[in-house]
Amino acid sequence: MRYSKLFSKTSKTVPHDADSANAKFLVQGGFIHQEAAGVYSYLPLGLKVLRNIEQIIREEIEEVGGQEVSMSVLHPKENWVRTDRWDSMDVLFKLRGAGEKDYALGPTHEEIVTPLVQDYVFSYKDLPTAVFQIQTKFRNEPRAKSGMLRGREFSMKDLYSFHASQEDLDRYYDEVKAAYFKIFERLGFDPASTVITYASGGAFSKYSHEYQVLSEVGEDHIYMCGKCRVAVNREILDDQNVCPECGNKDLTEKKGIEVGNIFKLGTKFSGAFNFQYTDESGKQQPVIMGCYGIGPSRIMGSLVELFSDKNGIMWPKSVAPYQVHLVSLGVDEKVIKESEKLYKDLKKAGISVLFDDRDERAGAKFADADLIGLPLRLVVSSRTLEKGGVEWKERNKSDAEEVVLGEAVKKVKKFYE
Amino acid sequence: MRYSKLFSKTSKTVPHDADSANAKFLVQGGFIHQEAAGVYSYLPLGLKVLRNIEQIIREEIEEVGGQEVSMSVLHPKENWVRTDRWDSMDVLFKLRGAGEKDYALGPTHEEIVTPLVQDYVFSYKDLPTAVFQIQTKFRNEPRAKSGMLRGREFSMKDLYSFHASQEDLDRYYDEVKAAYFKIFERLGFDPASTVITYASGGAFSKYSHEYQVLSEVGEDHIYMCGKCRVAVNREILDDQNVCPECGNKDLTEKKGIEVGNIFKLGTKFSGAFNFQYTDESGKQQPVIMGCYGIGPSRIMGSLVELFSDKNGIMWPKSVAPYQVHLVSLGVDEKVIKESEKLYKDLKKAGISVLFDDRDERAGAKFADADLIGLPLRLVVSSRTLEKGGVEWKERNKSDAEEVVLGEAVKKVKKFYE
Repeated sequence: MRYSKLFSKTSKTVPHDADSANAKFLVQGGFIHQEAAGVYSYLPLGLKVLRNIEQIIREEIEEVGGQEVSMSVLHPKENWVRTDRWDSMDVLFKLRGAGEKDYALGPTHEEIVTPLVQDYVFSYKDLPTAVFQIQTKFRNEPRAKSGMLRGREFSMKDLYSFHASQEDLDRYYDEVKAAYFKIFERLGFDPASTVITYASGGAFSKYSHEYQVLSEVGEDHIYMCGKCRVAVNREILDDQNVCPECGNKDLTEKKGIEVGNIFKLGTKFSGAFNFQYTDESGKQQPVIMGCYGIGPSRIMGSLVELFSDKNGIMWPKSVAPYQVHLVSLGVDEKVIKESEKLYKDLKKAGISVLFDDRDERAGAKFADADLIGLPLRLVVSSRTLEKGGVEWKERNKSDAEEVVLGEAVKKVKKFYE
Repeated sequence: MRYSKLFSKTSKTVPHDADSANAKFLVQGGFIHQEAAGVYSYLPLGLKVLRNIEQIIREEIEEVGGQEVSMSVLHPKENWVRTDRWDSMDVLFKLRGAGEKDYALGPTHEEIVTPLVQDYVFSYKDLPTAVFQIQTKFRNEPRAKSGMLRGREFSMKDLYSFHASQEDLDRYYDEVKAAYFKIFERLGFDPASTVITYASGGAFSKYSHEYQVLSEVGEDHIYMCGKCRVAVNREILDDQNVCPECGNKDLTEKKGIEVGNIFKLGTKFSGAFNFQYTDESGKQQPVIMGCYGIGPSRIMGSLVELFSDKNGIMWPKSVAPYQVHLVSLGVDEKVIKESEKLYKDLKKAGISVLFDDRDERAGAKFADADLIGLPLRLVVSSRTLEKGGVEWKERNKSDAEEVVLGEAVKKVKKFYE
């Protein structure tokens, strides 16, 4: 993509209400555009990051047998009355349509997925089964804040599993628990800073689990065990004050951003909809459910919080909107010819390139490259060509090096292997 | 995909409110699930069809320079007040959130895209530019009906273009006009039944254009010119009663389903937001806009209306959820072995397969295959193996033929070339 043709350019103006690195850099970098507090549109660069995040999640959820669906945003009021959450969930957006019909905008989909799966699952032979979607969700947050971290409209992957027994739910829950660690690692989070955190489990399970990435800007306070690699959240701490895995009382307070959560629902929702199955002996039994969430837009914000410096973003390789930020400097004929050739060669090799072909000064182009934060910047100028090459600069390293022009493509491919 | 593992099976129950072939077959075939009148969830098969349709549209819109974004569903009231449409658009879903903030659920995105692009486009050098999205839209229809044809929540591709002059808009409009015909042909519509129809153009243009596919179940009445391959809608007919291209008065009434529309907006929205650009001489000039819509979910319903018989759907090759419906009959060891091998071989060759590996009788499996409507059905049974082969049956042909087992994969690849 030629940066000159991309309609959404960087901006020098700091958003007046930017209260976090992600709100600031994502808006200034031309990734997102704010429409209202907590409500954003995705610009071409931001949409690419979001799709990359979603695709990694999709692949790993399909690995654990999830079948992709896309459920409605409009939820009939009666479904929420049925589960007693129409009045009790305070962040529910409600609206009234034609024919005095009331809807909620889905903030989560237990009220839709339970009766939906009920229409197709009748016997123990149909279980277990798991369905997921990646979709826009809505929460009427009293105070939206922190850019992508707490929005009113956001992207969510929600997986729901259905089982014939508690044991089978437990087995699957552990499978998803492991898949989640794999997802966060693939997304670029340091496994050492991704902490599974015990949280309250509701009526049907002692605990649920949150995935927290440690960050000074995190809203959540968690209490880490010095021996195990787990933590508890404040609610659990107040209850028991020990590590649930080893009984250790030496817990250290840390701040984290919640990037996922998994929950054993038991029969809470299947009970509300009277969703039962026929077991081997012909008896009706309640279906046991689990649910598992990850927010791709929140991940996007979290990655910026964790991977940025004063100049801008440093995207992990796996989610960067393009692989190479190619910069040509000056209007020298040879520079134009060689940078155009490199652009073509990189694309031909299957490498995605953002090509800053504008007639701008070096300082402005480098500032934009730092702000946008692609993992690798290549510069072609009269100076680099004199030395027979191209300047190679990785976003998270301070030094640049020279690479022979003819070897650049091969080296980029290796960098992304 | 093994059909035995797919959670969403076919159903014999005809939906009580199915008023059209698409509502009936898509629900019974396990493509969609109704949540409320005009509100559907997409099941795995339906989501695949939808994504295939969207991808064809995406490719062709990118060909005409569209840059993909994803704009918010929640629209601030003030944007709609600004264009005088908050009170005048009767199908607007409205809701109130925290802090007494009013929103509309986007039924179209002029109110968002105009100020959004305004933030990045300042000079004639930034024009023309075009942005699009493929996204869920909402209309508070008094009476939702005809399944996917008139829903309250539906998928829409909306492209918006921005120009420095009327001439440049005219040029781009013609480019998109041609791209739309290509899209409809790739989606499987017969070019001879896709008719461009003149409709009212509003204050800034004499005409807009609709794309109608001729169908007896169509809601729209159009009046076709016997000489040109164009039509006019009722509104234009009442005004002028002649073909706008050749002046011919011999217009024939037909019924159609509107599958797309294109519209010259002129300065209607740029004016409301005071969106201007600086021209070559440094003067401020109004930006000229166009908009171009196609509804992927409506396309999905239209395809079923056009391509189905009494037994079910007949998907065009380009959008079918899987390429081959592989059916094994009986529990004979050799049948199981050979059908499993064929399943593996087809997948290895990059062909997507829905494999009905259930222990069901032939009649039920064939009925499901006809209902689901993949273009090609392959059957492996003791009888076909005795003859050394597999039964080959195309959904839109009445006769089956035998194919040598070892040549099936090659023949399928050829079928889909």
